[in-house]
Amino acid sequence: MPEPRIHGREFVRTFFTTPTAEQGEDDSAKKLRKAIQLRGMQAPDVWVPDNEDATAPNMRDEGARNIAEVVADDGAEFPGEIHPRVVWHRDSPETRYKGLQHMLEIADPEKDAVDNIDGFVIPEVGDIDDWKKADEFITIVEHEYGLEEGSLNMSVIIESGQAELAMGELRDEMGKPTNNLERLFLLVDGEVDYTKDMRAITPTGALPEWKELRHNTSRGASAAGLIAVDGPYDDIRDVDGYRERITANSAMGMNGIWSLTPGQVEIANKTPLPPQEGYWTIDADGRTVELEADGDVQVYNGERIDLEETNGSYELEVGGEEHVLDEDELREELVDLTSYVPSMDDIVDSMEEFEAAKEAGKGAIAMTQATTIRIDGVEIDIQRDRMWDEATYQAMMTPVKLFKDVYANRPDQHDELAELYGEDVVERATQVGL
Amino acid sequence: MPEPRIHGREFVRTFFTTPTAEQGEDDSAKKLRKAIQLRGMQAPDVWVPDNEDATAPNMRDEGARNIAEVVADDGAEFPGEIHPRVVWHRDSPETRYKGLQHMLEIADPEKDAVDNIDGFVIPEVGDIDDWKKADEFITIVEHEYGLEEGSLNMSVIIESGQAELAMGELRDEMGKPTNNLERLFLLVDGEVDYTKDMRAITPTGALPEWKELRHNTSRGASAAGLIAVDGPYDDIRDVDGYRERITANSAMGMNGIWSLTPGQVEIANKTPLPPQEGYWTIDADGRTVELEADGDVQVYNGERIDLEETNGSYELEVGGEEHVLDEDELREELVDLTSYVPSMDDIVDSMEEFEAAKEAGKGAIAMTQATTIRIDGVEIDIQRDRMWDEATYQAMMTPVKLFKDVYANRPDQHDELAELYGEDVVERATQVGL
Amino acid sequence: MPEPRIHGREFVRTFFTTPTAEQGEDDSAKKLRKAIQLRGMQAPDVWVPDNEDATAPNMRDEGARNIAEVVADDGAEFPGEIHPRVVWHRDSPETRYKGLQHMLEIADPEKDAVDNIDGFVIPEVGDIDDWKKADEFITIVEHEYGLEEGSLNMSVIIESGQAELAMGELRDEMGKPTNNLERLFLLVDGEVDYTKDMRAITPTGALPEWKELRHNTSRGASAAGLIAVDGPYDDIRDVDGYRERITANSAMGMNGIWSLTPGQVEIANKTPLPPQEGYWTIDADGRTVELEADGDVQVYNGERIDLEETNGSYELEVGGEEHVLDEDELREELVDLTSYVPSMDDIVDSMEEFEAAKEAGKGAIAMTQATTIRIDGVEIDIQRDRMWDEATYQAMMTPVKLFKDVYANRPDQHDELAELYGEDVVERATQVGL
Repeated sequence: MPEPRIHGREFVRTFFTTPTAEQGEDDSAKKLRKAIQLRGMQAPDVWVPDNEDATAPNMRDEGARNIAEVVADDGAEFPGEIHPRVVWHRDSPETRYKGLQHMLEIADPEKDAVDNIDGFVIPEVGDIDDWKKADEFITIVEHEYGLEEGSLNMSVIIESGQAELAMGELRDEMGKPTNNLERLFLLVDGEVDYTKDMRAITPTGALPEWKELRHNTSRGASAAGLIAVDGPYDDIRDVDGYRERITANSAMGMNGIWSLTPGQVEIANKTPLPPQEGYWTIDADGRTVELEADGDVQVYNGERIDLEETNGSYELEVGGEEHVLDEDELREELVDLTSYVPSMDDIVDSMEEFEAAKEAGKGAIAMTQATTIRIDGVEIDIQRDRMWDEATYQAMMTPVKLFKDVYANRPDQHDELAELYGEDVVERATQVGL
Repeated sequence: MPEPRIHGREFVRTFFTTPTAEQGEDDSAKKLRKAIQLRGMQAPDVWVPDNEDATAPNMRDEGARNIAEVVADDGAEFPGEIHPRVVWHRDSPETRYKGLQHMLEIADPEKDAVDNIDGFVIPEVGDIDDWKKADEFITIVEHEYGLEEGSLNMSVIIESGQAELAMGELRDEMGKPTNNLERLFLLVDGEVDYTKDMRAITPTGALPEWKELRHNTSRGASAAGLIAVDGPYDDIRDVDGYRERITANSAMGMNGIWSLTPGQVEIANKTPLPPQEGYWTIDADGRTVELEADGDVQVYNGERIDLEETNGSYELEVGGEEHVLDEDELREELVDLTSYVPSMDDIVDSMEEFEAAKEAGKGAIAMTQATTIRIDGVEIDIQRDRMWDEATYQAMMTPVKLFKDVYANRPDQHDELAELYGEDVVERATQVGL
Repeated sequence: MPEPRIHGREFVRTFFTTPTAEQGEDDSAKKLRKAIQLRGMQAPDVWVPDNEDATAPNMRDEGARNIAEVVADDGAEFPGEIHPRVVWHRDSPETRYKGLQHMLEIADPEKDAVDNIDGFVIPEVGDIDDWKKADEFITIVEHEYGLEEGSLNMSVIIESGQAELAMGELRDEMGKPTNNLERLFLLVDGEVDYTKDMRAITPTGALPEWKELRHNTSRGASAAGLIAVDGPYDDIRDVDGYRERITANSAMGMNGIWSLTPGQVEIANKTPLPPQEGYWTIDADGRTVELEADGDVQVYNGERIDLEETNGSYELEVGGEEHVLDEDELREELVDLTSYVPSMDDIVDSMEEFEAAKEAGKGAIAMTQATTIRIDGVEIDIQRDRMWDEATYQAMMTPVKLFKDVYANRPDQHDELAELYGEDVVERATQVGL
């Protein structure tokens, strides 16, 4: 793997952008001043004073000055990292040169901000040689101001087919002597501009899913030791949709997402963490439904699944298809249909159980989940086993690593974590796997 | 981006293939003569006299002669572009040499066809070095006949894993001094042969979806300034299926498709254009259903969603799951479930509205869609806002750009466009965004 | 395409791993001795004595000795190929050197096993230069023991983003003079470790689908003349799920899968072969349901589709949406909803029919499938045509090629194949397409 970044972060949950200057405001930096005060779950892992799309073109010179001023004043206390976005475009030398000027403005040591600037975000990059131009400008900024080469990070917005392809070349390019691409940090998808670049059309104007782009971004990050972040989710009121997108992203290895409001930051900071309480779900004819816990019994109350018992024989109806089953067949069917979502506590339990088995010389053990399912008043006990070996253990460790990363880097979230999970679970989670 | 193609077209909706010679016909070129007479919506953007798969192997020498003859006679009046397909195979030097001979035949200036030949289509290409062999043969044809280097376009059929990978290398290869790959025009998927090359098996023999291939083709086109076209849809009678495929392709940035009949050409020419009238849809338990407009009210008449009001409380049942909601919750749920498909007129309105806001110094504005939904007699007003910024505006511009491209290049379709949209909308659409 | 492998196999259905040594057993090689006795449908195409994850770290030196011993004793009679997996890791020189030592142990001619060792499986490979390190070690083993260069195959487990990207470079790298990568044989996905490497998280801990990885593996195999194999399916009791995964893989061109038990081997050996009897299916509101044959009539007995006739008019209800249709419209709708899964016999019939047409000078013919569908007692005749040309014929040949490959290489399965299909069908299948 390329040399590790200078960063301690292995995970970034949130990428929060803020306009840098607004016309007609008493204090054009008002929003920046407000954002830099965020703490705890409302404060992002990465804060991005956005001197590109969020700020009107004619306000960007002032925006660059505002960033320097606000970060100089309050950057030292900000709990996350600070990565301003500057202007850039693969097709416009003029825009690229403007980006250099804004970086020189923001990082000028006389402005006293640079110590709390962790890097820059470069939008609209093209192929890998275009990335190198941005890298070179950052190197020039570093030399101009006596900073160590590579000390400023570089994150890019992937919003063109060219840039998507460039992510496949990072391993080959990052080691070369004529660049400092080891400074790369985040690969962030920008789906609106990507949609334009791909010339995609949807009837409603909604964004396509771009699953392949997200996979390729996650893979690019994995191959080059970087972190993948998904683009903005613009329906700000749709909290469920935002959560579902985060969960779908995590299943691709993309554990971070853009946030447009402190409310979105809070959701995006919390969603990738394992839940406080475990729960069972059932696949109700293609829809995943959470079962309601009644003591130790998990109850399905919907109308998409019907179950009836007559003399030890069972009629199970799922979405209009009827199956007559004996008890063992029913049990097997229910094992297939149900899943358990473990709590943080459950995960730590499993980790510890596997570690103990490993110490006792076992390479693989069966992990058991058992419960009682109730549908239409009929109850049936089920049990599912999963074999855990070293690979399973390592793969299941990811949410715990994420938790530890948060815990190590975000002391301002310790109270909320303790409140969420309890002190004891937090303590065990930070100790497991050492 | 590589140098723009010599073409004016930025979009190609239709790629229509015709056999070049048929045994036992009085006039073996009969089908060519018929196809070259097509006009208006039945005439394709790109017409492909197909001297490969559509024509029997022993008829292909005659086929090459027929192409030259028919294009010499009637090519000047044909409203689309003409790109004959010749034989080629990555694994057969004999076939490749035959392809050169056919190109020499067709482009021979003494045959008087070459002025109306826009380029050649090369099937069964392999890796990028194989593409260069075809490019070299076209260069030879150009020199032999005193044509400018690069004046004949080259389109390829992607029907192997090798060729799929080659699309990732185009940007690097197109600028090199020893080839003329800037002549590249269309990247066309050929799913039947691709299925063979991938050794894929489906139980029914139906073609796999090959979503990843289509994404990679669209991305390759985007990165290299080319145009992506999907392969043939062989169930000719399945008009709905063909339309759905075109819509799914457009959402990937693949706005063109192969057509096997003038009927398919007509559908494929019209489907990517915005509809004449806007309409609302609802997600009825996973199925998108168009609502019926009753004046300003949008009515759902199906049985997959039920709605009942009792004393200001609402029972909404979707696919057997019941939700009891107050009015605001119901409104929110319906906003989530419904979508609006804007007409061309609506799109132009939104464009103009955003342009006016931009001139007034605003970077982002909310676009509002409001209507009344009726389900089981219960009516509820809904309203959805979407924030538009410059990126949204640019992305929403794609269907308008497509329309303008059609309008500029296909005067033979002006009457049908005016009939479809009205003169006024056509006029405004051609003016917006200038 | 790169030079063909030294192998006769073009298809590998099964990749069966066995622990090489177990602590506390009388005979630590017991499982190896049992596995090497497998014959017929329970014996895999490729058997993998697994000296990596399946065997505890402290048992692996003994495991390497066991492999040599067991293969020396019984390898000559084993009906499949034998490819031991040794330890390797892209990030650990120590592990890689251990892998070399184990290969030297297993291939030592004094152990008498090497004549029946077909190659080695290298897990946890990284980028292409890491693959070359493993290739070099195998070259060293070959030279050390006087074997021909390239005579030992190399298969890799794709379980990192790096390795996924490396598959795109194989064609360029396999021909280079300083490696022997032509020895490559299988590309095997390893989804558990891949999930870890991608840092992916799912709420239940279930493996993500990784469709893009599987596509890229299949494409990599297609482009480089190799064979794609999917990773382990760890819910061993879920036979239906395993079959569905195999069928989904085949539709991507990935015709092989990892097996953990002889029971899984049997399923995975049989599933890719065409069925003994053809059957019809219907799309019942998104779920594919097999129709029950009652003589020549295909009966739908479920409750997701209702059909009623009144005076020659039909009411068809699918998933709560009602359509009133005349007989022709109903027929068309049913043609859309139904599919036929051809038997081996049917496929051979179609092949022969097309071959006869080709000899008679026809390039394309319509293949017809006709039957009667019965729903709720209402019967309707349907007929579907599909145009076959040379490309269709070639694509439909894949399952027949697979069958022939099995027949040629696995004489121990001849009896079971004859029992499954009948001697006559087997005879015709082995003759068609010659």
